[in-house]
Parts: sequence; C-alpha cells; structure tokens
Amino acid sequence: MTTRTYNLAVVGYGGMGSYHVDHLLKSNPQIHVKGIFDIKQERNDVALSKGLQVYECLDALLSDKSIHIVLIATPNDVHKEIAIKALKAHKHVVCEKPVTIYARDLEEIMTVAEETGQVFMVHQNRRWDEDFLTVKKIYNEKMTGEIFHIESRVHGANGIPGDWRHLKKNGGGMVLDWGVHLLDQLLFMIHSPVTSVYANLSYVLGDEVDDGFQTYLTFANGITALVEVGTTNFISLPRWYLKGTEGTAIIEDWGLNGKIVKQNKDIISAPKPIKAGQGLTKTMAPPSEEATTMVNLPAASVLSQDFYDNLVSVIEGRTEAIVKNHEVLRVLKLMESIFESAEKNEVIQTSL
Amino acid sequence: MTTRTYNLAVVGYGGMGSYHVDHLLKSNPQIHVKGIFDIKQERNDVALSKGLQVYECLDALLSDKSIHIVLIATPNDVHKEIAIKALKAHKHVVCEKPVTIYARDLEEIMTVAEETGQVFMVHQNRRWDEDFLTVKKIYNEKMTGEIFHIESRVHGANGIPGDWRHLKKNGGGMVLDWGVHLLDQLLFMIHSPVTSVYANLSYVLGDEVDDGFQTYLTFANGITALVEVGTTNFISLPRWYLKGTEGTAIIEDWGLNGKIVKQNKDIISAPKPIKAGQGLTKTMAPPSEEATTMVNLPAASVLSQDFYDNLVSVIEGRTEAIVKNHEVLRVLKLMESIFESAEKNEVIQTSL
Repeated sequence: MTTRTYNLAVVGYGGMGSYHVDHLLKSNPQIHVKGIFDIKQERNDVALSKGLQVYECLDALLSDKSIHIVLIATPNDVHKEIAIKALKAHKHVVCEKPVTIYARDLEEIMTVAEETGQVFMVHQNRRWDEDFLTVKKIYNEKMTGEIFHIESRVHGANGIPGDWRHLKKNGGGMVLDWGVHLLDQLLFMIHSPVTSVYANLSYVLGDEVDDGFQTYLTFANGITALVEVGTTNFISLPRWYLKGTEGTAIIEDWGLNGKIVKQNKDIISAPKPIKAGQGLTKTMAPPSEEATTMVNLPAASVLSQDFYDNLVSVIEGRTEAIVKNHEVLRVLKLMESIFESAEKNEVIQTSL
Repeated sequence: MTTRTYNLAVVGYGGMGSYHVDHLLKSNPQIHVKGIFDIKQERNDVALSKGLQVYECLDALLSDKSIHIVLIATPNDVHKEIAIKALKAHKHVVCEKPVTIYARDLEEIMTVAEETGQVFMVHQNRRWDEDFLTVKKIYNEKMTGEIFHIESRVHGANGIPGDWRHLKKNGGGMVLDWGVHLLDQLLFMIHSPVTSVYANLSYVLGDEVDDGFQTYLTFANGITALVEVGTTNFISLPRWYLKGTEGTAIIEDWGLNGKIVKQNKDIISAPKPIKAGQGLTKTMAPPSEEATTMVNLPAASVLSQDFYDNLVSVIEGRTEAIVKNHEVLRVLKLMESIFESAEKNEVIQTSL
C-alpha cells in the first residue's frame, strides 16, 4: 500500500500555530507543512526563516490546489469564517479550540463540512493528556469502586495571557480557554447526559472576560463534578480528586504525583477520635491504619492513535474520528449553560 | 469582689456531655458540675462512679433549686423542649449545636429566654478553633490582600458516627453536625449578608440523612465561599484555602500546617511556559521565582474569653455574649436555605 502525503497550511502562525508545526506535525510521516498565512509581518519573517511558504492573503492560501489540509490557529472569533471558506475550497480543516464561541456557529460549520464532504476536526488535544488518561483508567476500571464525584482543577497565578485572550470579542476568558479542555475531558469520559449546571465566574483581575470559574455539574447517572479554572491562585490545589464507593484518588500535578487510597472492605476497625480544634472528632479522624490501603496510580489508558494520525485515517475513511464534532458541540452547549448560569445566578437544567 | 459559684447539671450525658464535664468545665473556677440526667442506665453508672448526682427525671433536675445552669447535650430534636422547660424553671441554659433543626424553634427559645430573663447560649465552640482564628487573622489583617474567595472543608473517611446522627427525626446528617460549625465560622468572620446559596447534598452511604455536602455561598461584599463536609473521603483536601488580591493562603490540617504565598507586586517577571500534558502553557505555569514570596502562617487571633468564662460574665451582666443568639439564628436560616437549594436543585436568593 502506497502512503499518500498531504500538504498542510497554517492560518494564524502564533503560539499555537507554531506549536503544531514544531512539535505535533514534525514527525508525522504523511503530513507536510507547506506554508502559512498570518497578519503579522514578524510571524511571516519567522515562517520564511524556517523555509515555509508565506501566503499574502487567506484567499491565496485557499486557492493553492496543492494544499489538502488547513490548520486554523487564529483568535477564536474568526475560526468559523475561515473554516467555512476552507471547507468550501475543498480543504480538510483542523481547528484549534474553542472551535467557536457559540454552538450555532459550529453547527453551521458542520453543515458545510457535510455538504462539501471534507473532514473537519477540532484539536481537543487534552484528551491525550496523561493525567486525564490516568483518571479515565481509574474511572473505567472502577479502581476506587463506582466514582460518584470528580473534581478537575487547573490553577495558575499568572493571570490571563497578554493578548486577545483578554478580549470578549475575540472569545477570550478562561471558560473558553481552559474550561473547554476540562469539560471536554469529562464529557469524553462520562457517558451520561449533564442534567444541571451551576457556575460562578471570577472577574477579580478587572478584565472584561472571566479570569476563572467554578462550575458544579450533575450527570443523569448521579455523578457530580466540580470543574475549576483559576489564574489568581498562588498555591495550587490538586489537578484531580476522585471519590469512589471504595476509595479516593488524587493526582496532584502535571508530573502525575498522586495516589489511590482504598477502603479495606472486610475490616471493621473504628478510628480513634482526634482532637481537632476545640473538640474531639471521630467523624473527621483518619481511618485506622488497618482500614485502608494505599496504591500507586495506574498506567494511563492509551488512545488508539495520536491526533494527526487519526486525522489522516479519517480523511482516508479508515477509522472514525477520536474527536467527534457532535461531542465538541455538546461541550460548546455546556459552556453556554455555564455562562447563562453565572449571568443569571441560577441553576440551569440541561439535557446535554 | 466575691467570686460566686454556679452549679451546673447536664441533660444528656453522652459523648459531648461528658466532654464538657471532663474537659471544658474541669478547670472553670466558677462552675461546679453537680449532676446529670440521662435516659441510659450505663451513663448513669458512669456519672455515679465520678461522684455526680444522678437525677431520675428531667423535672427532678429542673426542680433542684441549687442548679443555676443546665447544659443540654441530647440529640438535636429535643433541645427545644428541654431548653424552654429549663428557662421557665429559671435556669440559665447552655445548648449543644445545632441548637435546633429549624430557625423558628430557636426563635421560640429566644422569646422564652427574653421573657424569663435567663441566659441562653449555644456552644458554637469551633469559633475558638486555632485553624479558624488563624484564618480570621489573615482575613482581618488583609495578609493576602482583600480576600475574595474562601474554601472551608472537613474531610473524613469514617461515615456518619454510629448513633442518632444517622436519623432524620433526631436532626442527623452532616449539614447539621459539621456544616453548622463551618458556616458559623464564616458568618462570624465575614460581616456581610449572604445573598445566594447553592448546595448539593451527598447520600452515597445510603442513610436517610446527608453524609456530606458542598455549598457555594455569595456574600453582598462580593466574597464567594465553598463550604464542604465529606465523610467518604479517603484522602483529605486542605482544611482552608483562601484567595486574596495579593496572595493565597492554605491551612492543610488541624495541625496548622500551611503557608501563605504572596505576590511581589513590583516585580514583573513572566513565567516560563511549561509542558503540561499534551500542550505548553504559560497560564498554568508556576510563577517565576522572583514573583512570589512564601511566608509562614501568622499566630491565630484570640477571642477575649473562653466559652464558659464568657457565659459567667454574661450571666453577671459584665459583658456581651461571644456567641450571640441572633448570629446562631442566622446560621440556622442559612442551613434551611442549603436544604432548600439541594432539594429543589436551585440557587436560593437570600438576605441573611
């Protein structure tokens, strides 16, 4: 079987655009990065210095018949227009996250993708994160029994990065920037509808967009989740905290420090009361030593392909997409409920 | 000045009743523990072995003219009846928490206390907890700038203790058992009305009462708080987590392990992006080393008197109560909003 090669062009050669070129696409045997389009001269200079072709406008890029795939890594508000143009120019399209700010805009893109028969895939790369895939393993294999509560947090102390991510019109803010990842991970893992959403956005930095949020989700299967992003946290709480019917799991950080503490079911051994503040407590005392067992975190689950290998397989009709557009649409709808809940200070009943 | 002595009798000589006698009252120079009433023979035997008088019924205790103070440490559902009887018998009354299950019951007690001119004080002892008074110090002295978000958690792995605390009719469950403390601490510290409440109760142990909860409070001054109690947590998250405009504080446990990390305001030093999962992030990278300073937790605030010294001073008209009944009433109303929010799965707008 001959292996075909695809030429890719990047629209928006900023931080993420060059991350794709320098890291994600570097070793892919079937995708060749041919050129870029960016509105900034300095980015064009970088591209030229790396031997990439620089297109003078989007239309020039799209009318290059040798380009098969367009990667969109611009600010969020222009994803839709570029995606639809590219699909209509018979390109396959990879789009950075959040794919659009509103669900209806993704629906428009999906319609055009269907009409043109081109592949449209959103780069929800954090489905491949090792911390998440470790959680997925614990969840799927019931390593702490049935998990009934999940907390997923990312805490930073650096505020919102210094560019368009501060601006509402460009789709800035932390719900759209990091929330989209954490929510996508949860919905990818938990196969049950979200039935209600409560959310609180933080505006402590004085930006027009949220600098963080906490949201409380309830799923139809009874699972609850607290999802949080903070950019004003000088001390970080753990990345993951999972409560199951037989134990608790924690992942502290990106370095995968963490553990599982399991209940020893057959051992009934009352805890010794401890002095806690001005009182004694048995309820909040540590369990007796015999009552629990500590185990290491398991090796992470593995997804069948990496993102770009999967893209090529999907283009060639050999497999289905790991990141499906209807899944991405569900996350966008969930983010709309989060914004609605925070704005009204109400619980939003959903059937997502 | 002659120092008067007061005789105290205990109604409900179980775990908390004997804790008062053996610890809290042991060294008080003005209060003498004379006797007890308990419905269990085994508790009467313990009392006799300690040289305490055992009353054969509540009325016998209340008609003992030598008794000045009654301590109520029974299950929660009978506090009101006993309190009102004791006040009408011209006793001063100390009552364990939660004082009543419903706010209207405390209001009845308060009316009788006013009519009879007797002192009624609720033993909200965790206002004296050193971890809380450390937080109060950080909050009041703005050691992390203006605090805008507070998380207060207690996590245990031992379920609900094995007695009436499992039963709804006795006022069991974790909102009433531990929630009352955590909420009382917050309202004692933050002088601003609670404007909205969202809460989610956990019933994972299959009891008829909640085995834990998470509640999200919004205050009129903009502060938000996440208050949580868990009894199925085999790994504990930190007891306190405080976000201020100039830093973050954490208290890990009852042993007061913790720290404050403050922002160095004048130093602008961009963090280095880190590899986090499948992507680079500057937002979630640790701040550069020059950008923050770690400081130790401060010494705790100190309240002017301990609980029973304050009681005596209040009886003698020398000072005001540290635990005021209208404050306790506010906490009961807040707990009612928590139950209402959880039951309806709605945000409850309040003006507490």
